[in-house]
Amino acid sequence: MASQTTAVPLRAGILGATGAVGQRFITLLADHPGFKVQRLGASARSAGRPYGEAVIWRMTTPLPEALAAQTVVECRPEDFDDCDVIFSGLDASVAGDIELAFLAADHCIISNAKNHRMASDVPLVVPTVNAEHLHAIPAQRLRRGLRRGFLVTISNCASVGVCVAMKALEAQHATLGRINRVNVVTMQAISGAGYPGMSAMDMLDNVVPYIGGEEDKLETEPVKILGALSEPLLLTDLVVSATCNRVPVIDGHMASMSVGFARDSTASQLDAAAATKVAVDAFTNYQTLASTDALSCASAPRPPLHVLSSADRPQPRLDRDRGNGYAVSIGRVRPCPLLDVKFTVLAHNTILGAAGSGVLNAEIAQAMGYLTRREACKH
Amino acid sequence: MASQTTAVPLRAGILGATGAVGQRFITLLADHPGFKVQRLGASARSAGRPYGEAVIWRMTTPLPEALAAQTVVECRPEDFDDCDVIFSGLDASVAGDIELAFLAADHCIISNAKNHRMASDVPLVVPTVNAEHLHAIPAQRLRRGLRRGFLVTISNCASVGVCVAMKALEAQHATLGRINRVNVVTMQAISGAGYPGMSAMDMLDNVVPYIGGEEDKLETEPVKILGALSEPLLLTDLVVSATCNRVPVIDGHMASMSVGFARDSTASQLDAAAATKVAVDAFTNYQTLASTDALSCASAPRPPLHVLSSADRPQPRLDRDRGNGYAVSIGRVRPCPLLDVKFTVLAHNTILGAAGSGVLNAEIAQAMGYLTRREACKH
Amino acid sequence: MASQTTAVPLRAGILGATGAVGQRFITLLADHPGFKVQRLGASARSAGRPYGEAVIWRMTTPLPEALAAQTVVECRPEDFDDCDVIFSGLDASVAGDIELAFLAADHCIISNAKNHRMASDVPLVVPTVNAEHLHAIPAQRLRRGLRRGFLVTISNCASVGVCVAMKALEAQHATLGRINRVNVVTMQAISGAGYPGMSAMDMLDNVVPYIGGEEDKLETEPVKILGALSEPLLLTDLVVSATCNRVPVIDGHMASMSVGFARDSTASQLDAAAATKVAVDAFTNYQTLASTDALSCASAPRPPLHVLSSADRPQPRLDRDRGNGYAVSIGRVRPCPLLDVKFTVLAHNTILGAAGSGVLNAEIAQAMGYLTRREACKH
Amino acid sequence: MASQTTAVPLRAGILGATGAVGQRFITLLADHPGFKVQRLGASARSAGRPYGEAVIWRMTTPLPEALAAQTVVECRPEDFDDCDVIFSGLDASVAGDIELAFLAADHCIISNAKNHRMASDVPLVVPTVNAEHLHAIPAQRLRRGLRRGFLVTISNCASVGVCVAMKALEAQHATLGRINRVNVVTMQAISGAGYPGMSAMDMLDNVVPYIGGEEDKLETEPVKILGALSEPLLLTDLVVSATCNRVPVIDGHMASMSVGFARDSTASQLDAAAATKVAVDAFTNYQTLASTDALSCASAPRPPLHVLSSADRPQPRLDRDRGNGYAVSIGRVRPCPLLDVKFTVLAHNTILGAAGSGVLNAEIAQAMGYLTRREACKH
Repeated sequence: MASQTTAVPLRAGILGATGAVGQRFITLLADHPGFKVQRLGASARSAGRPYGEAVIWRMTTPLPEALAAQTVVECRPEDFDDCDVIFSGLDASVAGDIELAFLAADHCIISNAKNHRMASDVPLVVPTVNAEHLHAIPAQRLRRGLRRGFLVTISNCASVGVCVAMKALEAQHATLGRINRVNVVTMQAISGAGYPGMSAMDMLDNVVPYIGGEEDKLETEPVKILGALSEPLLLTDLVVSATCNRVPVIDGHMASMSVGFARDSTASQLDAAAATKVAVDAFTNYQTLASTDALSCASAPRPPLHVLSSADRPQPRLDRDRGNGYAVSIGRVRPCPLLDVKFTVLAHNTILGAAGSGVLNAEIAQAMGYLTRREACKH
Repeated sequence: MASQTTAVPLRAGILGATGAVGQRFITLLADHPGFKVQRLGASARSAGRPYGEAVIWRMTTPLPEALAAQTVVECRPEDFDDCDVIFSGLDASVAGDIELAFLAADHCIISNAKNHRMASDVPLVVPTVNAEHLHAIPAQRLRRGLRRGFLVTISNCASVGVCVAMKALEAQHATLGRINRVNVVTMQAISGAGYPGMSAMDMLDNVVPYIGGEEDKLETEPVKILGALSEPLLLTDLVVSATCNRVPVIDGHMASMSVGFARDSTASQLDAAAATKVAVDAFTNYQTLASTDALSCASAPRPPLHVLSSADRPQPRLDRDRGNGYAVSIGRVRPCPLLDVKFTVLAHNTILGAAGSGVLNAEIAQAMGYLTRREACKH
Repeated sequence: MASQTTAVPLRAGILGATGAVGQRFITLLADHPGFKVQRLGASARSAGRPYGEAVIWRMTTPLPEALAAQTVVECRPEDFDDCDVIFSGLDASVAGDIELAFLAADHCIISNAKNHRMASDVPLVVPTVNAEHLHAIPAQRLRRGLRRGFLVTISNCASVGVCVAMKALEAQHATLGRINRVNVVTMQAISGAGYPGMSAMDMLDNVVPYIGGEEDKLETEPVKILGALSEPLLLTDLVVSATCNRVPVIDGHMASMSVGFARDSTASQLDAAAATKVAVDAFTNYQTLASTDALSCASAPRPPLHVLSSADRPQPRLDRDRGNGYAVSIGRVRPCPLLDVKFTVLAHNTILGAAGSGVLNAEIAQAMGYLTRREACKH
Repeated sequence: MASQTTAVPLRAGILGATGAVGQRFITLLADHPGFKVQRLGASARSAGRPYGEAVIWRMTTPLPEALAAQTVVECRPEDFDDCDVIFSGLDASVAGDIELAFLAADHCIISNAKNHRMASDVPLVVPTVNAEHLHAIPAQRLRRGLRRGFLVTISNCASVGVCVAMKALEAQHATLGRINRVNVVTMQAISGAGYPGMSAMDMLDNVVPYIGGEEDKLETEPVKILGALSEPLLLTDLVVSATCNRVPVIDGHMASMSVGFARDSTASQLDAAAATKVAVDAFTNYQTLASTDALSCASAPRPPLHVLSSADRPQPRLDRDRGNGYAVSIGRVRPCPLLDVKFTVLAHNTILGAAGSGVLNAEIAQAMGYLTRREACKH
């Protein structure tokens, strides 16, 4: 496998660079040991202008000066020939076609857009959950006639915490039984809506009990993410009921989750207290491929899951930055009178829930040998 | 039955008058047609001082000048002899004994404290849900040797919206089946914690996923409130799973609810879409005793339940004041993949969820003939 | 003078009816004794649709059902022939021409738009400050060849509190000297930016130290409002320095003000403590024409200015609704080491600061005899 | 001078370690190259307990495990014998006597408490403003009979930004004239009130126009900080008028400032536009001793003052962390119609405004040779 800390960093192109996800990609790559920002793509309206003028920079760290001066280009594959990896923060309204064009040009694309997430040969990867799904890349290349390129997608921002929790419990399925029922009620941060996104009139002294399209994603994406690495990558007997709320929080999606295990398993004989204890252990001992010595990815959180014992945690403001925003926090693990176990989970929606998953997926793909320098292959 | 709009208003004593619930009682009674504030009781620290000096007034309407000048007394029954009804906003740490002392003195007490809520002969009444439980007053008087007094309790502030929704669905149990499973995840306002209550450091850009003791109340109180009028007033086959979160909202408790109906009922044959339609009708047509011509209570909301069709409602800031804070709002009624129907419910936690329930319970008790002028009965 | 509580209410047309100011006009007129909403005007995009569908209703009181069903029309004078008074909540980008067209059709227009505020024959009226400027209407009619119509403007939302305070102090100019220097730093509510207005990302855990064009208005409008009733209605020796900040508050503009009095007055011999005492008295005793028995307007606040003695008041959430949002609150009156007196002033920006001023100006104009039924005059 | 990056870090004791300032000291020292936390002092109530149990940890980075296990001691000098420097985050109610006891034991104390700030021989140092005031330490030692100890104080959290701005302008006094008038209106973050500090009921949808004692500090501390290094360290002809408001912001104190220059200076002939240009240059070119090669302090911000050109900056959420919270941001520099120049300044109140100033003052004192290892001197 290729070493991640190459002397020469891989060159990254960013699509949708002026948007909220694009800005986060830039921030995460600013001091990254393995990648450097090479090219900034945006809409025709921004193209041709210095990035510093085209963008309304909303990050809490200053825009690097070198990037401020760089000229924005349109999102056409030929302008990204000297990029080894493409991070897409494109809006769903345009991402579908543009990403396919880049893929046809044999680019390695890691996309935050929803368009291709559920395509059967496209891995949908939460890097601390199902990194092994990246091993579907060879089959994707074969099917689509690619030499080095690939298309990998990042999950919905609200799915990441939910999937980390479920994956940890699945690791104990011999004891707990397979998860077959999940009830999840989210309290999601406003940064998930981009910028300007939510009106301040809706988010002061208020909660909005609806996020368009979000519940559908939460009820379907985990089924693919938690599935096995095989066509069609889908679990079949998992039912998720999701309710999504928007709350006055800048960053950090919280979810109140209840999980039920299959009744016919031998494990179903555990009483609630015993199942809760097993769940706490499962969360505490959770490990991910990205954090292992074998891959040793720069951004991989160690540990990937923080179990908090204080009764009133996790809290978005205090816990979202654990593991630099790549770790998930879980607290209040306790029996559920209706299903089996319930708890609260928190994940940073714009880091592990968006751009950070992209960066960490790229690190893993590189460590696995799927992501290589582009000059190595002529097309 | 006694007419509510008597020429001479009943005289009200308020226990815990300087607290948040006490202040809300004063506000609601300020222009009330049937009651007037007669006596203000508080701790020894406040007693003897003008109310305007003893209180840190936090209501958004000015303190009535006449009350500002009134001298606060301690919470001893003998100082409330000229009161016809006692509203208790006492803290649970002292409410238990003080309320029993007032009851022993044959007072009519309506209490917001949790201490006596689950006592088998004490009605726990959400006025727009189970007003008929007030008919347990004669049995209580008999058991406790009272002539005109009684003790009635108000439910936990998070229970009211949940119970209105459940009661409306129960009215259609012939079609839907009996409710036997409820999952409720709340997003509760900070006013529920009193004043100063929550630290601002915990409620800016944050959610706190825990409220001490609240989940227990939500899992037990609805069972009594939804029960039949008989000892021990308890439903037996209802399971509630509650998770309580505190969010940065001033007033208005939201809850994301899922409800399941008993499988063995003939009604269980309804598919999800059909059950959802029945539920919407049940909510839309919900009526309460307090709003009927028979009782015609001054504060009774008409209708008691607002069904909102907009996808993103109810919202605390926009909908909490419907029916002057006495009406509950419900929206997003839809099928639940796990249970049967799910929806979002909102209630004003310091009006219908606290002091307002006290005032409306008093109006109902008077209309039913249980609450009378104190001079009518010598003790 | 015409009595305000006519048996037959005047018919009101609202321009810009779907906007934030338009919605507030509708709310204030919903139960108004003297006016009824007759016609709803908006852009071509909304025209022809039922108002309930065209509007995103954001008020905290429900939209009256009768208005929800009413068809929106475009803002053309001929469609408002049966209206006696026109309230304009139009955006400045279109208000200029539309309002002149209505004026040419002899309509009585009261406008919240900034376009004509500084025109020399157009009264700029804060109803609790300079109602007597309405007596410029006859001269305006003469100059513009109108029979019954007029154009009166409402000040900028941040100017109202500032002007009430200044007017109260001016009433004591014989003792204090004329105001010649004012420093004002505002903390303004987000509703001032309309809906959706400010991004929630900018208004959670944040302050924005800039509001486009606002400081100019604050430095010029008070000079006209505080001026005498004569062409050009301008004070000449008053200097205002304004700084405007946006803070996370729903409604209620606060301002930290310092005021200096002319040094050459005999009154300038007052020391700081004495001047402060005179200022407190001036605020406490402040009266306005609208509240007098002569006019006795329905919406006029009594008193128009609340002086708060608690050290930490006024506060937007607690005090903005005093006088139903028509009263101004002032607190922290104390000597200023640099100028003479400093204090904090609060006004409700969408009531006294916008639509409410429009309604109260109409009431005053009617009481003065300038606003009459349209059928009385053929054009 | 002693090099700051000694191989062996200096050992730090923290007084008031469980409080908000104490926690921030611990966070800033966690990875500090020159200091390590040696001893944690708190009240008798906490003493004897592991720090992790005694504290309610409210920082957004996890408490270091080694410190969680460390036993808290009382704040007695004899328990801090192995500490080279003492950082005091004590409450003013106890800081006065305790700090004098530590000073009597020849400790080097850097205190955030207000008690000794205005003492004539105690330097009051904003590290990026008047580091040279530390040269008053020898005189202090002489006067108080100390061998190695000293007492240095940190300014009020709202004073730091104001003083950085004033100092930068003072550097151009030959052109601008001496500052003789300052009007400052602050919008201060809730973390300035500690934890729990402000009630959430006061800080949602609200502003509180009062902070006890704060205006006095803002009107007096800058006079000492901006003064020359000589007894009594006071400027005499500077008048500051301060108004302090609390706003719903977690961290970062904003101030709207206006500055006037002495009229009799030759510089007073500059017109407003010219003076503004000079001011912008003064801010842009501002340098501090701590950032020079001579001292080269680890925490010194480079640059110490960020001039922001965007019309709507600085903003607390976006700009408070510049220079890791040690840099001040200034924007909106423009002429003031009343005084000469006005602008908006922002400083991180718990870093540069409190604990960070303590740490940087210690770095400077060490670089200047005043802070040395304690074992070097027997007492």
